[in-house]
Amino acid sequence: MRLAVLGTGGVGRTLAGAFDQRGDEVRLGTRDPGAAGRDGRLADFLAAHAGVRLTGFEEAAAASELAILAVGGQHAVEAVRRAGGTGSALDGKVLIDVTNPLDFSGGFPPTLFACNTTSLGEQVQAATTARVVKALNTVAASVMVDPSSVANGDHDLFVCGDDEGAKGIVGALLEERFGWQRIIDLGDLSMARGTEMYLALWTRLMAALGTSEFNVRVAR
Amino acid sequence: MRLAVLGTGGVGRTLAGAFDQRGDEVRLGTRDPGAAGRDGRLADFLAAHAGVRLTGFEEAAAASELAILAVGGQHAVEAVRRAGGTGSALDGKVLIDVTNPLDFSGGFPPTLFACNTTSLGEQVQAATTARVVKALNTVAASVMVDPSSVANGDHDLFVCGDDEGAKGIVGALLEERFGWQRIIDLGDLSMARGTEMYLALWTRLMAALGTSEFNVRVAR
Repeated sequence: MRLAVLGTGGVGRTLAGAFDQRGDEVRLGTRDPGAAGRDGRLADFLAAHAGVRLTGFEEAAAASELAILAVGGQHAVEAVRRAGGTGSALDGKVLIDVTNPLDFSGGFPPTLFACNTTSLGEQVQAATTARVVKALNTVAASVMVDPSSVANGDHDLFVCGDDEGAKGIVGALLEERFGWQRIIDLGDLSMARGTEMYLALWTRLMAALGTSEFNVRVAR
Repeated sequence: MRLAVLGTGGVGRTLAGAFDQRGDEVRLGTRDPGAAGRDGRLADFLAAHAGVRLTGFEEAAAASELAILAVGGQHAVEAVRRAGGTGSALDGKVLIDVTNPLDFSGGFPPTLFACNTTSLGEQVQAATTARVVKALNTVAASVMVDPSSVANGDHDLFVCGDDEGAKGIVGALLEERFGWQRIIDLGDLSMARGTEMYLALWTRLMAALGTSEFNVRVAR
């Protein structure tokens, strides 16, 4: 599949590398493609993944069937606008939003710069005519691409979005590529308020457990 | 044990009834003890639990070794003040805060009237010299008193508070009375921001699952 991963940080590189390893045609989108020459980790990543092409946000989106938003939360809305926003590069395409509205300016644990009566997922959707599906934002990047690394995959992923077809595509993709078996559809995109606000617990659990390699399983 | 359960709603009655059944000496605290004559469910509850005494907030706290705050979140700080606040009725005692800052004025799912940079747990602690332990606020009342009703008890309870001794007392009490086996200590009382903000996910999960009889288990 032709995929755009928007964002070259740790989350974006992990996702791009994992899709590349599984045979997808990955474009890694960035605001400034020239930055690769100044970012050692990005340069190392590109050297190790010859199939991944570094391009601008909009070029990556335009060339792809599905896009994944994996920038830092504070850059999410701007990155979607740069990737095409309501234009043809993203229009009607599935956009998986894995971002969280984390604000580390006051230290750890972070606060959220959007919550309670809004969510970053909704703000992203307001900036684009892509079909936004909020997913994967409740686990660390390493768990996103390898759920079996935690408790043999016996834990839950939460998705939400306004487009039923888009959620179906995302669920099938995540199961087929990474083995996600347990996916709970919470409903429309306003449900992202729930999964993003859960980060306030996730960050504190990470500190208490001493690892980001965990997830939750809903017990009934 | 002599226990005060502050709050006569569904959560307070469930807790008071469960402790009463296990042999504790329970005082059920309310702002207006005369209201029992006008509240059919409360009257029925008291008729069914002859050992539970209905009293004012402060009388309940003064007569007890440990208190449990189980009023609606919007009444939490006022109830603690009425129960003694920084006075002798609560001073130095363990106070289990099971409340959540839920605001249903805009419908369902609720928003939180305190979150992100504060928590109701911290606001409760600021109003009293009791030793506040936030606990049980992440599950429905029926699960609080019978964790084995969900997945044979194989799920996690989160506690936090500033007083280590108080957390130890609460953990032992919840294990001994109700069988809570898996308790994760998140740290100081500011961690209540995490467990209270999780309610934004909990309420949406309740809607998606069609039941409040669930909890999460941390998978590692």
